[in-house]
Amino acid sequence: MKVITTLPELRNARTALPEPVGFVPTMGYLHAGHISLINAAKAGCTSVVASIFVNPTQFGPNEDLAEYPRDLPRDLSVLEAAGVDLVWTPTPECMYPPGFQTWVEVQGLTNGLEGKIRPGHFRGVTTIVAKLFNAVRPDRAYFGQKDAQQAVVIRRMTRDLDFPIEIVVCPTTREPDGLAMSSRNSYLIPGERNVATVIFRALTEAKNAYESGQREADILRRIMRDVVNAEPLVRLQYVSCADYDTLEELNTVNTKALLSMAVYVGKTRLIDNFVIG
Amino acid sequence: MKVITTLPELRNARTALPEPVGFVPTMGYLHAGHISLINAAKAGCTSVVASIFVNPTQFGPNEDLAEYPRDLPRDLSVLEAAGVDLVWTPTPECMYPPGFQTWVEVQGLTNGLEGKIRPGHFRGVTTIVAKLFNAVRPDRAYFGQKDAQQAVVIRRMTRDLDFPIEIVVCPTTREPDGLAMSSRNSYLIPGERNVATVIFRALTEAKNAYESGQREADILRRIMRDVVNAEPLVRLQYVSCADYDTLEELNTVNTKALLSMAVYVGKTRLIDNFVIG
Repeated sequence: MKVITTLPELRNARTALPEPVGFVPTMGYLHAGHISLINAAKAGCTSVVASIFVNPTQFGPNEDLAEYPRDLPRDLSVLEAAGVDLVWTPTPECMYPPGFQTWVEVQGLTNGLEGKIRPGHFRGVTTIVAKLFNAVRPDRAYFGQKDAQQAVVIRRMTRDLDFPIEIVVCPTTREPDGLAMSSRNSYLIPGERNVATVIFRALTEAKNAYESGQREADILRRIMRDVVNAEPLVRLQYVSCADYDTLEELNTVNTKALLSMAVYVGKTRLIDNFVIG
Repeated sequence: MKVITTLPELRNARTALPEPVGFVPTMGYLHAGHISLINAAKAGCTSVVASIFVNPTQFGPNEDLAEYPRDLPRDLSVLEAAGVDLVWTPTPECMYPPGFQTWVEVQGLTNGLEGKIRPGHFRGVTTIVAKLFNAVRPDRAYFGQKDAQQAVVIRRMTRDLDFPIEIVVCPTTREPDGLAMSSRNSYLIPGERNVATVIFRALTEAKNAYESGQREADILRRIMRDVVNAEPLVRLQYVSCADYDTLEELNTVNTKALLSMAVYVGKTRLIDNFVIG
């Protein structure tokens, strides 16, 4: 496995990779969710490239950029064991040199949900993903359904800007008790870790109601809200029942829909979602 | 010469082109300036791709999108005679399908000059050029110095987004009397065509003053303004003496600088520039 930190080296190493090339962009501190993306890339592609870069431009001024967990040696051994061919670990100075001033922005789809709570977040995401796409030039790129809005936004960007890249969205990987895998789970202290399952329980209750015939989005949102609010250590930030393609809030669920929420467990912000319909 | 109108056909045809591939994006109605770009691409690359697309998103609501001159049959025969291998002529519906909502924007560099007069213009330019780059995947792309700010902005976008593409800027091609070649020159009626040379004369006077030792940017700007204002059929929109790299207005010229201006000759808006220093 090659570990590469400069763009000219990356361009050289990329040329030598047998195609098709699969790409898994990450912010490191890898968990089973990332590995499932690597495995999907290995199953579908001849070569697999992963990147590790904690992208500063997708963090807001009051967010957890400085504390974001990092462990490069462990990440590299995990990627090597998973059979990755090439790891791209650029520095922030390489990605955002002095004078950097170009941004890629998806409108519309970024107005609600995470985009509303985290202004500028998706501009940072789409800009860095465009840069990574141009640096790595994959044939396919793999993202997790856990970041549902991100997946929709990146698919839109890829199509709108004519990147010749197939976006593959893989199912959310969960702990045995249902908690979605996330690097941010490492922030949770033991008491918080136990109550964090309320997210999965709330989504499950709403999904069960849908499967029992409930089509009123307000009622599905209320079910999730009530389950979360019954847990005193957890603070709900938003719940949503939105159209899966447009991400607009629904009145009635008669198409594919996204149940999603963001909560604070102590000081840790967690998101999760289910797709229904 | 292949003429291609759909993206899947373009991707196929591109794969078959021997590399390096040179690319000349145009809005059609080709003149000797475009041909000089094609010739530079042919001299430097094994294959040459040109595109013809009058990009609606770089025109403001009160600009000349509808009247912009078009003559595809003539353009195609000109490109064939120039030895172009492949012409990409997408439709507006192909480039901006329903739901399109992604924009590429360069900040800073687009604040002054054309960017100030034409809000949104460069956002349209950088978005379409990013799309064309992803569609055509050239090794080198050729732009004219005539659109000086565009060249600086595209070079910045290419670097910032890590496009593996070399940007080549070619000298402005001029009529024998000095008027810069432009598709918009076709708007000029005979009396206007004669007085349009005032732009070249104003730039030349300022350049001569610089070469005689004048370093005060205010004086160089005043020289250009005075020459243009002496021509009653011409209305000056702006004159500029700016840093060549940052495009910020200068007080004193002690580095590479851009003398530029925009004028109206009748209803026709024309721009031109000289590089000094």
